[in-house]
Amino acid sequence: MPSISKKGLEMPESPIRKLVPFAEQAKKDGAKVIHLNIGQPDIKTPKIALDAVKNNTLTVLEYSRTEGSEVYREKLADYYAKHHINITAQDILVTTGGSEALSFTMGSIADNNDEIIIPEPFYANYNGFATAMGIKVVPVVSRIDDNFALPPIEEFEKLITARTKAILICNPGNPTGYLYSRDEIQKLAVIVKKHNLFLIADEVYREFTYDGKEHYSILQESGLDENAIMIDSVSKRYSMCGARIGCLVSKNKEVIKTALKFAQARLSPPTYAQIASEAALETPQSYFDDVKKEYVSRRNLLIEELEKIDGIKIGHPQGAFYCIAELPIEDSDDFAQWLLEEFRVEGETVMVAPAAGFYASEGLGKNQIRIAYVLDKDSLRKAVHILKEALKIYKGR
Amino acid sequence: MPSISKKGLEMPESPIRKLVPFAEQAKKDGAKVIHLNIGQPDIKTPKIALDAVKNNTLTVLEYSRTEGSEVYREKLADYYAKHHINITAQDILVTTGGSEALSFTMGSIADNNDEIIIPEPFYANYNGFATAMGIKVVPVVSRIDDNFALPPIEEFEKLITARTKAILICNPGNPTGYLYSRDEIQKLAVIVKKHNLFLIADEVYREFTYDGKEHYSILQESGLDENAIMIDSVSKRYSMCGARIGCLVSKNKEVIKTALKFAQARLSPPTYAQIASEAALETPQSYFDDVKKEYVSRRNLLIEELEKIDGIKIGHPQGAFYCIAELPIEDSDDFAQWLLEEFRVEGETVMVAPAAGFYASEGLGKNQIRIAYVLDKDSLRKAVHILKEALKIYKGR
Ligand SMILES: Cc1ncc(COP(=O)(O)O)c(C=O)c1O
Ligand SMILES: Cc1ncc(COP(=O)(O)O)c(C=O)c1O
Repeated sequence: MPSISKKGLEMPESPIRKLVPFAEQAKKDGAKVIHLNIGQPDIKTPKIALDAVKNNTLTVLEYSRTEGSEVYREKLADYYAKHHINITAQDILVTTGGSEALSFTMGSIADNNDEIIIPEPFYANYNGFATAMGIKVVPVVSRIDDNFALPPIEEFEKLITARTKAILICNPGNPTGYLYSRDEIQKLAVIVKKHNLFLIADEVYREFTYDGKEHYSILQESGLDENAIMIDSVSKRYSMCGARIGCLVSKNKEVIKTALKFAQARLSPPTYAQIASEAALETPQSYFDDVKKEYVSRRNLLIEELEKIDGIKIGHPQGAFYCIAELPIEDSDDFAQWLLEEFRVEGETVMVAPAAGFYASEGLGKNQIRIAYVLDKDSLRKAVHILKEALKIYKGR
Repeated sequence: MPSISKKGLEMPESPIRKLVPFAEQAKKDGAKVIHLNIGQPDIKTPKIALDAVKNNTLTVLEYSRTEGSEVYREKLADYYAKHHINITAQDILVTTGGSEALSFTMGSIADNNDEIIIPEPFYANYNGFATAMGIKVVPVVSRIDDNFALPPIEEFEKLITARTKAILICNPGNPTGYLYSRDEIQKLAVIVKKHNLFLIADEVYREFTYDGKEHYSILQESGLDENAIMIDSVSKRYSMCGARIGCLVSKNKEVIKTALKFAQARLSPPTYAQIASEAALETPQSYFDDVKKEYVSRRNLLIEELEKIDGIKIGHPQGAFYCIAELPIEDSDDFAQWLLEEFRVEGETVMVAPAAGFYASEGLGKNQIRIAYVLDKDSLRKAVHILKEALKIYKGR
């Protein structure tokens, strides 16, 4: 029998995948499972975007341009201008989700066995894209006690080697909800320039910042044009995850030229999704105001309820829609599975994402879980209640 | 300035990319350019597929399942059954175009510096996917004088090393139009089993076979379950290139399990496109009969007209919608550029794809071009006339 590649064997599974069969079994057994584990918002997609697709008049569904349609890229540049990011359509490569932008970026800047430094915990799929490209993720620990702020810059410097090609941050963070300050971005700017590295920022949650805090993009930082690569997506912004449209933005022309070659190989991003994404740019500000208000009140409720749990520690999110909680347990994988297999409150249980999958360092995050607050408040309240009751029994087993 | 990866520098450009600015200039100068260079069919997409998207009632455009929607995969299995391919939904991974299926396949079976043997000329983007994954393409030459039939099996055996992981074929072939016989597939089956290799077949042109010839899929070959990986796509079948839906099919469970991990990292294939693809499965046979009739008459006209050109050699296509022609010139890159820059017949010129980009062996194909017959017959006739007139003048310059 022919054999699977080493890389294929090493490809990580999604941190939740192992739990899926247990969730399915729980549902089969008649339980209601409240999902705190997924980043799929329940928010409605802007009607203007949905309608644009419904009213399309295509008769031949053709490949689009490899780099995305000209008009869409022009309009995207206008969108960024409104966010104090000055770029042109030429600096944008439209991709199939932020996912593809991450993958093209890694391939464009790092070879087999090269290294990328990432503050952990981080979006688990960074591991997948890196493994697929033969790249090593070098984690630098951020701590729940610091609310997952940027680790001291000396910690980064200790990790830089001849193979280091980039520092990758997620801002605001999944799974931490942490929003980097302008000061933190500037510290990173200094270090990447000093060591000739790329600074990659995954800004797919740009719109979701709370408590009056403003997002500061790496593309706003002057003098960083050659180093900065920004990853973006329509998935969360417009609750359009199924569209599969994102982009890679950089003023470094070599980066765009190289990423374009990766893009040429896969021909073009999806056409219908570009129609939706272009129309979505006309979404009124009131939509975002409403969505933000909703997330803030969910977050506030979630934190308030979680804080009632004995022995819990919480990373206080200022952005995105995730929150890391440290529980008074030893193994959140086991706890998450036990919840699905054994624990019910009035026929309901909860599915959480064990946080170890968001860390690259072996053993870290084992007592943490990630909670996504993409559910209505009643469900959130009920879910935290179930968690609280579950912990009482789980500990005493 | 931080540096681009070696792999990024090595990523090939599309064989036509260099010509694009010359085509744009020609158009600016008022010339009409007839495009023989692209694989984008002019055929209408089945209305049933377009309507399904127009009539969709989604309110939240969610991620689909990573492996593609359950219903779609079930229906796809039925489609394959009609083509004498017996597989189940579990053997199918839905991907973002055949492109992504190729990329996942390569990553799942080969590591950095591993080798895949491919008969050349081949679909140029195989090079791109291989380079992105750090894999070496090892070409085995097929010849226009043999109509691009499978090279003698000894030629493959000579190239097999400890690093060889797979043989990849395209059937029917882009850019050759060659349709492998059952006998040829069986020869390949023997050799991959003997050497423990995968046999990857890109069958995206399955429907397009002519002159009463039937397509024989590697999945029809018994005893090949562990070795066979089939790549497919809706792009050409339903003239739905912009959808970006394809799939990877294998009965080797380790392959599917591994490819699924690559798929998990990118979350899901596009949702609208899956709606279109599922509906497209209801396309009536009469649609394909009409399309096939149209391609056959275009091909016949094209060959008939090309044969009037002095000193031309043609690979006679029995499938797909491409044809390789060897011209009495030395450098088709130069000829193609000259056509766009200098040559006009009544204000019109032709853009062709120089064939060197479809070969991995340095120097091969330099006097060949690829012609895609995805244009109406009047345009084809005119285009060949222009080529004929151009050659007279080009040779005499
Ligand atoms: C931090 C982060 N980056 C990137 C992505 C990829 O999203 P998409 O490919 O849908 O744009 C996600 C999705 O959850 C994410 O959370
Ligand atoms: C031989 C072959 N394979 C694969 C593809 C990829 O097509 P898609 O990604 O649109 O499915 C093409 C497109 O032209 C092709 O010609």
